[in-house]
Amino acid sequence: MTPHLKQENQKDTGELASLLSLCKRRGFLFPSSEIYGGLGSCWDYGPLGVQFKQNIKQQWWNQMTRRSDMTGLDSRIFMHPKVWEASGHLEGFTDPLSDCRDCKHRFLRETKSIPDKDHNPGYQAENKKIAKADEAAKSKSDENAKDKESVFLQKKKKKEAQPLQKDRCPQCGSVNITEPRNFNLMFKSFMGPVEDESAQVYLRPETAQGIYVNFQNIQKATRKPLPFGVAQVGKSFRNEITPSHLIFRMREFEQMEMQFFISPTEGKKWFDIWKEERHKHLLSLGLRSEKLRFHPHGPKELAHYARAAVDIEYEFPMGWRELEGIHDRGDFDLSQHEKFSGKNLAYFDPVQNKSFLPHIIETSIGCDRLFLALMCDALTEEEVQGEKRVVLKLHKNLAPVQVAILPLSKKNPLMEMGRKIQQTLEKNWFTDYDVSGGIGRRYRRQDEVGTPWCVTVDFESVEDEKVTVRQRDTMTQERIPITSLTGYLNDNF
Amino acid sequence: MTPHLKQENQKDTGELASLLSLCKRRGFLFPSSEIYGGLGSCWDYGPLGVQFKQNIKQQWWNQMTRRSDMTGLDSRIFMHPKVWEASGHLEGFTDPLSDCRDCKHRFLRETKSIPDKDHNPGYQAENKKIAKADEAAKSKSDENAKDKESVFLQKKKKKEAQPLQKDRCPQCGSVNITEPRNFNLMFKSFMGPVEDESAQVYLRPETAQGIYVNFQNIQKATRKPLPFGVAQVGKSFRNEITPSHLIFRMREFEQMEMQFFISPTEGKKWFDIWKEERHKHLLSLGLRSEKLRFHPHGPKELAHYARAAVDIEYEFPMGWRELEGIHDRGDFDLSQHEKFSGKNLAYFDPVQNKSFLPHIIETSIGCDRLFLALMCDALTEEEVQGEKRVVLKLHKNLAPVQVAILPLSKKNPLMEMGRKIQQTLEKNWFTDYDVSGGIGRRYRRQDEVGTPWCVTVDFESVEDEKVTVRQRDTMTQERIPITSLTGYLNDNF
Repeated sequence: MTPHLKQENQKDTGELASLLSLCKRRGFLFPSSEIYGGLGSCWDYGPLGVQFKQNIKQQWWNQMTRRSDMTGLDSRIFMHPKVWEASGHLEGFTDPLSDCRDCKHRFLRETKSIPDKDHNPGYQAENKKIAKADEAAKSKSDENAKDKESVFLQKKKKKEAQPLQKDRCPQCGSVNITEPRNFNLMFKSFMGPVEDESAQVYLRPETAQGIYVNFQNIQKATRKPLPFGVAQVGKSFRNEITPSHLIFRMREFEQMEMQFFISPTEGKKWFDIWKEERHKHLLSLGLRSEKLRFHPHGPKELAHYARAAVDIEYEFPMGWRELEGIHDRGDFDLSQHEKFSGKNLAYFDPVQNKSFLPHIIETSIGCDRLFLALMCDALTEEEVQGEKRVVLKLHKNLAPVQVAILPLSKKNPLMEMGRKIQQTLEKNWFTDYDVSGGIGRRYRRQDEVGTPWCVTVDFESVEDEKVTVRQRDTMTQERIPITSLTGYLNDNF
Repeated sequence: MTPHLKQENQKDTGELASLLSLCKRRGFLFPSSEIYGGLGSCWDYGPLGVQFKQNIKQQWWNQMTRRSDMTGLDSRIFMHPKVWEASGHLEGFTDPLSDCRDCKHRFLRETKSIPDKDHNPGYQAENKKIAKADEAAKSKSDENAKDKESVFLQKKKKKEAQPLQKDRCPQCGSVNITEPRNFNLMFKSFMGPVEDESAQVYLRPETAQGIYVNFQNIQKATRKPLPFGVAQVGKSFRNEITPSHLIFRMREFEQMEMQFFISPTEGKKWFDIWKEERHKHLLSLGLRSEKLRFHPHGPKELAHYARAAVDIEYEFPMGWRELEGIHDRGDFDLSQHEKFSGKNLAYFDPVQNKSFLPHIIETSIGCDRLFLALMCDALTEEEVQGEKRVVLKLHKNLAPVQVAILPLSKKNPLMEMGRKIQQTLEKNWFTDYDVSGGIGRRYRRQDEVGTPWCVTVDFESVEDEKVTVRQRDTMTQERIPITSLTGYLNDNF
């Protein structure tokens, strides 16, 4: 097996390393296929991880779709190959790679032709379009073709001629390496029994295209007038050369994307609204405001499809990184799909009494990335009575365990009382039941996974039908009648 | 583009055709990439479909994980290639295909070497194992090797020699066709920059293996004693030669699988318990009991990994088909992964004070298939006052719209009242808001998508602060104070 299939995330240190240790030990994350040595920086979400991630998705979904100008979609991972021609991914979603002629290693060149921190599918396609336009101009002209090159193409060539930052093989140090060639980041496969070009399909590198190609179907089925949005949660795949930082950049990841279809004149207005909405939502999940910042894209950073773009960045242990992107995509997407499909995708506006191609404001966030941000943000070390307390200060709506039931004895009637309480509470909350070890140790175990409330059943509970409710962050304890527990928690959720 | 990438589901007639028409028109299902002519029998879930499917998954997840002997997992679609060696998929998850030498068409031969209705990954692997054992026996022996063939191998050869049911190319009718060759049904791809065998990966054909390889990680992290189960919902991929019947058999589909780890002596007990549990769950979703039946597998039907198996079948418009499978898998899975990974996967039981490989009871249901069964089951045509009424009798917990708010006028104060009511109700239920057309027509529209309750805001509502609540199935109407709406719906959910 080549090295790239191996688990590669051994480099993280400090805060990320502590987080990983906690995540593995307590069942948030496991290295994928670990008994076989792991697989290419894939991570599985363990018992606590899967529930935490589901809660993140649920919060996003509720926030997005429980409003009358929004609807949802679940489109396929496999899409028609033409989609990726129209979107620019087939031509432009690439990384430049070189081969070492000595040790045969293939590696990423640092001279990324991608201006954005994250992959910008259409940038190279745009370059090629310029090149093609130049070629067309050349062939039409009688004059010396070289003189006819556009300023853009000249600039592009100049850029390519710049010395590479890395001109050695990172594996053996040889300088006997090939010029970089573009390597497409989409995973390829074949659909059907014949493995030839005509059967080639791709795993989608983003969920957004599923919304664009369904725009008309959705509009007709829902009869929604503009403006309205379509929300989608789903897996995407990018054959990254350098996946990194646990689940920050993975080859298989999950996106939460929303496309808001608007009248062409309202781009600025809705871009600003969604920028604020998304920032508010991230704050509502408990992320600290000082750890979030806006990074508006300057003209040079803008993707070819974007008229305006802003990232919401989070300060991860490895630095400020993009968490969510908000883009004014204009009519780029629908006009590309009109062109490539030959279908008229215009919307007829009964108020304005005219047809037009809607513009799109997009909000796009990686679910795994948000998971990591929330974990980093919540992980806290405190000193309590001279001892270290590790507490995961997750928002109570997101915590994978919301209430832990802790009977002080493994025998009846305490065990029975505990189970009964759990059966009542688990109708509304995610519960855990823990009977082993001293109560202090059990509190610490719950603190470490972010459980907001612990309910302790003690010997007095048998007499007075009351239990002790302990709050995670303040560690305050209250004595509550068992019959009032649901009401108490309801009031505090 | 070869024919197999095209949309193939044009053949369904009768009940399925009516259902499809409803699904497309109202936004349950759209042909995937439809503006590009569709893609290989993929379907996208539209605005109503995505919510309905989410509700199905949520019910399953709650039912499974809200109990103390169960936990969840979300493992990757990409797994280490060795996993598929251990599971038997690499060798045995195949369909026999022939090529036509005249028209070059590649097609499925009917002589399936798979005894089960659905694909049975290990069956061929098992056959090959027998063959290998025979070979080993041969090489050890000095006698005539042919005489040493086991009865199994002789039987197998006899079976292969049987005349094929179809000995003509289904496209051009030629008899000039090749012998069938086995074609693996797993989608292949390459991870990392090098496209050679060492980088070959597969899209998982089932989610179950993710649970097996994580068994030890999960047990350690949760400290759960046997018996306990692990539930997972996720996408799987099978490169089916003949996807069929809308979403019944798709190449990209979603599974809800649960693996219950038990002591080796308790197989029969837990097999029976889970068989009943699953049947009860399907009934609780509203499926009619006369449309469900058990199909226990006889000895000849049993997959190689199964000690016992039963299907829960549903009577679809195209006949009785497997909806869910319950399998006693013995220790097949963990012992295979022990063998291929070289890791000890035994569980130490503190009560029995010994180590052993847990046995596994599996329950496995296709989410898309259950979606189809529920839709078929719910779609009803009635005659009401001489007119046809189409009503989708979905269970109220599953309905994608649970309450529709219908103001009788598009003007204020009725519109405003309607919106206010929606804002209150959408905190707890999935709502819709419809103001266009006559009220009778609006009721019909809601009936057709399965909305259990309609709330009509009329001119009197302004005076008496009451609204009319109409129930879908009985069509009865009640006048309810607006302030009591939440309570009324709570009591009826």
